[in-house]
Amino acid sequence: MQAREFLMIPGPTPVPDRVLEAVARHPIGHRTPEFSKMLRGAVDDLKWLGETAKDPFVITSSGTGAMEAAIANTVNSGDRVLSLIVGVFGERWAKISEAYGAKVERVISEAGQPIDLVLLADKLKKDKDKQIKVVTVTHNETSTGVINDLQAITKLVREHGALLVVDAVTSFGAVHLPIDKWEVDVLVTGSQKALMLPPGLAIIFFSDRAVRVSENCKTPRFYFDLRKYKKSLEQDTTPATPNVSLVAGLRESLLMMREDGTEKIFARHLRLKEALRSGVKALGLKLFVADEHASPTITAILPPDGISVADIRKGLKEEFRILVADGQEDLKGKIFRIGHMGYVFERDILMTLAALESVLRKLGHEVTPGKAVEAASTAFAVR
Amino acid sequence: MQAREFLMIPGPTPVPDRVLEAVARHPIGHRTPEFSKMLRGAVDDLKWLGETAKDPFVITSSGTGAMEAAIANTVNSGDRVLSLIVGVFGERWAKISEAYGAKVERVISEAGQPIDLVLLADKLKKDKDKQIKVVTVTHNETSTGVINDLQAITKLVREHGALLVVDAVTSFGAVHLPIDKWEVDVLVTGSQKALMLPPGLAIIFFSDRAVRVSENCKTPRFYFDLRKYKKSLEQDTTPATPNVSLVAGLRESLLMMREDGTEKIFARHLRLKEALRSGVKALGLKLFVADEHASPTITAILPPDGISVADIRKGLKEEFRILVADGQEDLKGKIFRIGHMGYVFERDILMTLAALESVLRKLGHEVTPGKAVEAASTAFAVR
Repeated sequence: MQAREFLMIPGPTPVPDRVLEAVARHPIGHRTPEFSKMLRGAVDDLKWLGETAKDPFVITSSGTGAMEAAIANTVNSGDRVLSLIVGVFGERWAKISEAYGAKVERVISEAGQPIDLVLLADKLKKDKDKQIKVVTVTHNETSTGVINDLQAITKLVREHGALLVVDAVTSFGAVHLPIDKWEVDVLVTGSQKALMLPPGLAIIFFSDRAVRVSENCKTPRFYFDLRKYKKSLEQDTTPATPNVSLVAGLRESLLMMREDGTEKIFARHLRLKEALRSGVKALGLKLFVADEHASPTITAILPPDGISVADIRKGLKEEFRILVADGQEDLKGKIFRIGHMGYVFERDILMTLAALESVLRKLGHEVTPGKAVEAASTAFAVR
Repeated sequence: MQAREFLMIPGPTPVPDRVLEAVARHPIGHRTPEFSKMLRGAVDDLKWLGETAKDPFVITSSGTGAMEAAIANTVNSGDRVLSLIVGVFGERWAKISEAYGAKVERVISEAGQPIDLVLLADKLKKDKDKQIKVVTVTHNETSTGVINDLQAITKLVREHGALLVVDAVTSFGAVHLPIDKWEVDVLVTGSQKALMLPPGLAIIFFSDRAVRVSENCKTPRFYFDLRKYKKSLEQDTTPATPNVSLVAGLRESLLMMREDGTEKIFARHLRLKEALRSGVKALGLKLFVADEHASPTITAILPPDGISVADIRKGLKEEFRILVADGQEDLKGKIFRIGHMGYVFERDILMTLAALESVLRKLGHEVTPGKAVEAASTAFAVR
């Protein structure tokens, strides 16, 4: 017998039993009033969560599918796209845009750093004849654990006039993100993050401005053609057969979020982040991202000198069945990442810190036992 | 208390408890050896089921997503595509191809009729300079309940040299379909049909010829770029986060199919079709498709004079909680469709016929009680 694998990775994340039970129910027919009611309920609750008056579209795909939908519906071949890149997922926007024939200019921050707002303001100011049609941004960069100042970015892009396309896959539902107030044009997220579901559904919010752009967009598309989703959603349905099981799960997870309220949910994520960071510091480890740009959902940590990321991950997985993530691409082996989004609580942070301490001590890292948990507990008490 | 909704629609179809239980398990991390092993097992069993040596790709999307993948990876803007259309899903191939800029020629059969092989042979023969690059075909047309002679079509298209792209969404896993022997280039299917899963996964088989075409295809694509799936699958993984829950379910449903063997599964589908048709005839109703072209997975039926499809569906749903489908588009209200694919058995056919008899009698249709069940039972005994 083994403990269940515990997901402290940046997705998939832990799924509540209530949601698993909803997903496990026998699928219902998707062209029925019952399904329409369920979909409508989920859509309405997503609007509540994103503080927007516009219906989002629910797509049966990975989050990457919704990213493609964002580009395929707004970018024409030859359009100039400004991609603000702080990691792997920022680069994905650029790659998708290039796949659709856009001329992409990349503004790349050093790994672990956020988007440089001064540089962005300057880039936009210099584009006097408004050649930049779309700006892509990653709100919360999963590969490094950086959160960008989306409100400030939105303001700059809005002043310029380009369309702002946002990857909020690992922030939506964990971080305050008032879509209408900030005037975000396009925002995508996925089911397997703060929404506490298994992977397989993606969600895309599309402003009136974005809808107008999409109506004139000539890029070839079919499955991700949001005009079809819009038309179908007016009848509370979807163009193709949706993942009815995950829509049932989404309905349930959003009901749970409603019961808690966003204030409580967002505060919990901040509390977990701060406690984890305090604990990690108490273990004598370095954090990859400075406090002021640190993500409330993902924390990247450098291993101590002479101890490998692989050994830390192996120890956590084999001895404690806790999964944490390696770095991606250039950062592989250089950092490890702990996800703390969605159905994650104070006790999970204490457990992870305690297990990490145990693994590090076995690997020869010197640390006073109990310091990490003590630091995290203190942080919980402050918030 | 109500009986559980019973799906006699052409998808989603009934899901076995073993599969629901696998889907309900907590998701595991997708970048783990455990997930890779599960995916590899499913892929190997799909190869067994399709009698092919080539790995299919598993995509997190509806079946329509895999249809788009088929076109986006093989059709360039301006290419000539010949679309053989016998219903709504055949037309979908044409629409997707047009969305990607193809010049589509439609060969449309009358509703309820299969593809005209003589006409097809003639079309292909006349294309002496091989302008037709791709031929699209629906193996089993869900909207009418017609099954096409895929072996004969494949032979004709192979002689011509065009690429054959097949929608086997409602035939794969229910009907013998040896991909390599028949030399099918591209074949797509979905999870929520004969594979006995909830919707949300699509599967695409891609021959070596199709792979070569896709490598030179210039059509913009990202999420459905099969070159990425190929590269990832060589490492037993997927390019984006897959629906790990449905892959777990797929693993389980394929194990169940392995236990039964294809011979038994395919024979059951033929037996159910024949029994249902016998029963429907005994009720004095007309079948929409002639016996020789009738689908083993979907049966379309005309309502008796003076009784509406809506009333029949309503009676079945409200009194017996059995769902059957209306006709689609032009056939709405003209036929109703009973799905019998995947996890459907003799007793379900008897139940549906008995309930249909009861509903029809209430609606004033004259029928000798018991005739339909008797006819079906006799048909079971013959096979």
